[in-house]
Amino acid sequence: MSTPFVTVDVTVLDANLRAMADHATARGLALRPHAKTHKSPEIARRQLALGAVGLTVATVSEAEIFAAGGVTDLFIAYPIWPSPERAARLRALTEQAGVRVGVDSAESAEALGRAVPGLEVLVEVDSGHHRSGVLPAQAGAVAVAADKAGSLVRGVFTFPGHSYGPDRQRPAVDAESAALSEAAATLTARGLDASVRSGGSTPTAALSGDTLTEIRPGVYVFGDAQQVELGTCGWEQVALTVTATVVSRSGQRFILDAGSKVLGADQQAWATGGGRLPAYPDARITALSEHHATVVLPAGHVVPKLGVRLAVVPNHVCATVNLADELIVVDGGEVVDRWPVTARGANT
Amino acid sequence: MSTPFVTVDVTVLDANLRAMADHATARGLALRPHAKTHKSPEIARRQLALGAVGLTVATVSEAEIFAAGGVTDLFIAYPIWPSPERAARLRALTEQAGVRVGVDSAESAEALGRAVPGLEVLVEVDSGHHRSGVLPAQAGAVAVAADKAGSLVRGVFTFPGHSYGPDRQRPAVDAESAALSEAAATLTARGLDASVRSGGSTPTAALSGDTLTEIRPGVYVFGDAQQVELGTCGWEQVALTVTATVVSRSGQRFILDAGSKVLGADQQAWATGGGRLPAYPDARITALSEHHATVVLPAGHVVPKLGVRLAVVPNHVCATVNLADELIVVDGGEVVDRWPVTARGANT
Repeated sequence: MSTPFVTVDVTVLDANLRAMADHATARGLALRPHAKTHKSPEIARRQLALGAVGLTVATVSEAEIFAAGGVTDLFIAYPIWPSPERAARLRALTEQAGVRVGVDSAESAEALGRAVPGLEVLVEVDSGHHRSGVLPAQAGAVAVAADKAGSLVRGVFTFPGHSYGPDRQRPAVDAESAALSEAAATLTARGLDASVRSGGSTPTAALSGDTLTEIRPGVYVFGDAQQVELGTCGWEQVALTVTATVVSRSGQRFILDAGSKVLGADQQAWATGGGRLPAYPDARITALSEHHATVVLPAGHVVPKLGVRLAVVPNHVCATVNLADELIVVDGGEVVDRWPVTARGANT
Repeated sequence: MSTPFVTVDVTVLDANLRAMADHATARGLALRPHAKTHKSPEIARRQLALGAVGLTVATVSEAEIFAAGGVTDLFIAYPIWPSPERAARLRALTEQAGVRVGVDSAESAEALGRAVPGLEVLVEVDSGHHRSGVLPAQAGAVAVAADKAGSLVRGVFTFPGHSYGPDRQRPAVDAESAALSEAAATLTARGLDASVRSGGSTPTAALSGDTLTEIRPGVYVFGDAQQVELGTCGWEQVALTVTATVVSRSGQRFILDAGSKVLGADQQAWATGGGRLPAYPDARITALSEHHATVVLPAGHVVPKLGVRLAVVPNHVCATVNLADELIVVDGGEVVDRWPVTARGANT
């Protein structure tokens, strides 16, 4: 097989799946993994077999693909705007599976209620990430609009994306709990159902507050360099790597044939580089071109030879998977299967 | 059509193709466009019809796809390491098309010469980007190794990637000319052919020095926000945009349904944000999640309504195209065709 290619260690994967399932059970939380990370029906099947209540997805097209694969409980954790075509697709989807969507304004709640009657909705709350979502105090008003428009309000959700930073998990969890608690109260005060209080991300999953009824981690299945550098997983929990070849060397610098078109270009300000090399913990990926990773080793470290293959842990595994057509599945170092990334590019 | 999707204005595209072809002709340069940008046989066909001498590609798999599409002259501008499988693919490729590859060490030159006899090679030179490539003074030694190993040395090439920064085009062009000139002299001093001196990037194409015989721009076909912000193209020359929908609003912030899984995550330190909105020149994309672009407008500017569709110019169009399965071709605002991104994900 020519490099670069994406490998998943199925033993590590299964251990990750089981650990999160056990954590959710122990905490009495429903686990609804975010399938945007793996985009793979085979991994979804394993998650559901271990007790996940359903899947989270980001787009209607991801939902369509998993529904076609037999998943019957899907939450599109996104503030859907029901354009005529998207509304028609959502109506068709509700014939195939139980579907729940996000809503974050009275206007979109009204449009959605008209376009897709009887849809289950959760009100999206901004718990500090400042992306989509309403302030907690405004959740009740959105829920009332959804209810009046004929949607079935089930509760509230948030994404504590501000957990992605050193030492930011605990404050993000506290903000998430406070926001969901306040938002849920604005629904119950209006006589609306707030029984679902959904949150969570991989960095915060271990800390999830008592307010939550459901968590939606995604990255935990594979882990990645961001999680390792945040301290939320160890190297031994990283299930996905990109295999790349050393194609050029100069002094303490060498070049691998996996660049941003394979690894993805995500790089948070606090990241140490463009990904990590477990075999060379002191190496830093100082630049990513489309097909080059520029790696620098400290003085005195021996640079690998031309032609050597190395495993690279990408910074953000969701981006990596979405650039691949298939995952090469290994067990004990042997290739045992290939899983298609069925929902790759499912952006609509 | 549900958003997000990638649109190409064919009138703008054709004007860009013609302008670069005319520039190359006027300067007496061979034009060998880098097809990694468009990955599309239809656009390759147009480039060749306008006089391009062949195509540049980054990987053997890109070369395979364009050769299958009938392109007969391909330069893989990459320091190929000939693993057994890749060497076999290269040998098969040379049966289909004229193929030239990059080499940047005596060791890889020897391996390549043994594995793929009679291959045409160009020695890669580092003109200041500090990625792959040898120092100019070392080019002759690599060329001798390639020649002895049975390859056909044709000259030298470089990628002046350090042209990607404000006011860095002129210094990068000067460095490129000096490096290629010095490197070529080390070949001719050893009696080897240095008739190809290939360089160029979109930011430097207009300035290409007299040393060059060939230029390899890629991005010029579409333009992107990086090129506009560098001053190397105008908004009216941007042929590719992503159409996205406003799905959420809060104060001066709004969210579009095109994130890094559509636009790509590339963002140079000097970029103004995660892409640009021509209809809102003062708007800034302050964050990209996978399916959200967070856009902020200055105080006093009217935020677009929910459901409105807007064109987004990505920062780095090569990444955007590689995330799409097809390009929606428009002419005068009407959809006239769909072009598959045939070489999407061709990373090996």
